[in-house]
Amino acid sequence: MYPMAAEFHTDAWLNAPADFSLAALRGRVVLVEVFQLLCPACVSHALPQAQRARQMFSRRQLAVIGLHSVFEHHEVQGTMAALRAFAHEYRLDFPIGLDAADGSTGIPRTMAAYSMQGTPTTLLIDRDGRLCLQHFGVLDDIALGAAIMAAIAEYRPESVGSDPGVASAECSSSGCPRPAD
Amino acid sequence: MYPMAAEFHTDAWLNAPADFSLAALRGRVVLVEVFQLLCPACVSHALPQAQRARQMFSRRQLAVIGLHSVFEHHEVQGTMAALRAFAHEYRLDFPIGLDAADGSTGIPRTMAAYSMQGTPTTLLIDRDGRLCLQHFGVLDDIALGAAIMAAIAEYRPESVGSDPGVASAECSSSGCPRPAD
Amino acid sequence: MYPMAAEFHTDAWLNAPADFSLAALRGRVVLVEVFQLLCPACVSHALPQAQRARQMFSRRQLAVIGLHSVFEHHEVQGTMAALRAFAHEYRLDFPIGLDAADGSTGIPRTMAAYSMQGTPTTLLIDRDGRLCLQHFGVLDDIALGAAIMAAIAEYRPESVGSDPGVASAECSSSGCPRPAD
Amino acid sequence: MYPMAAEFHTDAWLNAPADFSLAALRGRVVLVEVFQLLCPACVSHALPQAQRARQMFSRRQLAVIGLHSVFEHHEVQGTMAALRAFAHEYRLDFPIGLDAADGSTGIPRTMAAYSMQGTPTTLLIDRDGRLCLQHFGVLDDIALGAAIMAAIAEYRPESVGSDPGVASAECSSSGCPRPAD
Repeated sequence: MYPMAAEFHTDAWLNAPADFSLAALRGRVVLVEVFQLLCPACVSHALPQAQRARQMFSRRQLAVIGLHSVFEHHEVQGTMAALRAFAHEYRLDFPIGLDAADGSTGIPRTMAAYSMQGTPTTLLIDRDGRLCLQHFGVLDDIALGAAIMAAIAEYRPESVGSDPGVASAECSSSGCPRPAD
Repeated sequence: MYPMAAEFHTDAWLNAPADFSLAALRGRVVLVEVFQLLCPACVSHALPQAQRARQMFSRRQLAVIGLHSVFEHHEVQGTMAALRAFAHEYRLDFPIGLDAADGSTGIPRTMAAYSMQGTPTTLLIDRDGRLCLQHFGVLDDIALGAAIMAAIAEYRPESVGSDPGVASAECSSSGCPRPAD
Repeated sequence: MYPMAAEFHTDAWLNAPADFSLAALRGRVVLVEVFQLLCPACVSHALPQAQRARQMFSRRQLAVIGLHSVFEHHEVQGTMAALRAFAHEYRLDFPIGLDAADGSTGIPRTMAAYSMQGTPTTLLIDRDGRLCLQHFGVLDDIALGAAIMAAIAEYRPESVGSDPGVASAECSSSGCPRPAD
Repeated sequence: MYPMAAEFHTDAWLNAPADFSLAALRGRVVLVEVFQLLCPACVSHALPQAQRARQMFSRRQLAVIGLHSVFEHHEVQGTMAALRAFAHEYRLDFPIGLDAADGSTGIPRTMAAYSMQGTPTTLLIDRDGRLCLQHFGVLDDIALGAAIMAAIAEYRPESVGSDPGVASAECSSSGCPRPAD
């Protein structure tokens, strides 16, 4: 059985009411793209992929949301003004949460709670609120389509073609790894 | 309920025993890529996609095969020698049937039996031998991944993001339409 | 005869001494990529192209520099901290000037002096400091290679395959048009 | 000084008079794409690149032609019928020569005379008929644009970003190496 997906800790939401939450989406499969606006692989791959996925499935079956989890360059990309400008230029009109800042570690609170390795991270949450996929780095389109459909069908698949993830200590074309807490 | 997928009419098989057939694959989901070796969209899109799909799923769950359905330039691409040379250069090592020639119409027999519109055509057949997808032209990777997983999960989805198909009378980047019978 | 390229008005330079200027590059052909860090076509096309061009030619023959000309979202992308974080994540290690802010119009001073239409804009300046190309929007690689070589060879070509430029009032995959002064 | 480009040995021409020859193009720069129709890198990269180059330059300055140099699968791709069908489906309407067969070695005569390593090979011939570039494998667009412009400008450049070429004994995404004579 997959674990329950913990509620997000956010400081604000864009394209959504202030009290938006994961719980509001219960009953639909939820694709969450966790990104930073200065993360190259998020901009070139993960966010366009989330937009394609959103167009491929009915809104009743799949909800797509973003989570801006800033763990570096906080002063540049960590504000709602920065997120709002970025979402405007890249035409992102789905709900995007600003992951709650943690002044002591610099790792935002949802990213820490999920033990995410960096950005982009793709989460998939089923209709009952269980976390059925958590993937760091570039995810293949066929694999994503299969994972979403498995969640819609309430089918627990064998693992579908996994990527090796990201090993570098700096941002690469595969993703930006976060520092240790 | 989906219709049963009719058995293929073939003159020969490459990378498979001479008596190979769809029936031999019953119990697994089957992805069939129907192509011509001189069809640009088959070479640039559909065949590489079939190879990616083959790597994403376990062989026990998904079988990938090809069908060479030649409806033009028969003398150049219609022979086993041509198919064999093409499969060698493009590293296609899955079973490929040579769709049975029909001397009177020029449209090969399986292509006619399925009323395919041209190449590439993607077929998806479920474990019980039912035809759950028939698509002419370029198919999106997310949509294909979702369709394969729905077949594996024995789930009948709402339609997933469909392409408009191909309208031109000549080969385009979307596919090669066949002439009327 | 091409016009002389006017000296840039900058508030600061990254990856260069504080008193850097176009004049310092006289004697070499200079490729200038004018961009904003929130401009999608700059990030996906123009800046990677400038980096490829830099690797294709000898440094003695071609200098590549950037100009960050911010005409929108000033508070988010208009600071050296923002430019520095962006250049770090995208591995831009050539000199980049911060186009001088003009508090009254919001259009930075070099952008206004050159009557640029938006970002990305590509400038090519010959060894004598003359402006031989100014192009707004996505520029083809073959055309860019040809333009650079014409400048190196001191040859004045017939126009090489030009793009139509950008007509939309918002950022598109072709570029971000600036507002009128 | 570059060597003179030897006249081609051809068995036939497509999209050109039967007595077509390199000499007929003297006075213009000539880009020659040497290919085989079953060579993946020719189909995916080199031939589309030749078509782009043809659109970028004026016909008075640059002529683009093809040479079909078949050194393997002769019975499938070595005929004018095969070349004609391929050129039709891929919309190649520039002159294409069929490199003259050599029954004893299997390496066609022009390929042998130029000591080409395989397909794709790109040749560039200046207005005086001198061979200024011979490149086996995938060639970068910026480098090609620069090489064409250098020939047009009658400028002899330092070498522009060269590719390592192809080492494998089989066709790869970089090209198809020919066997030794």
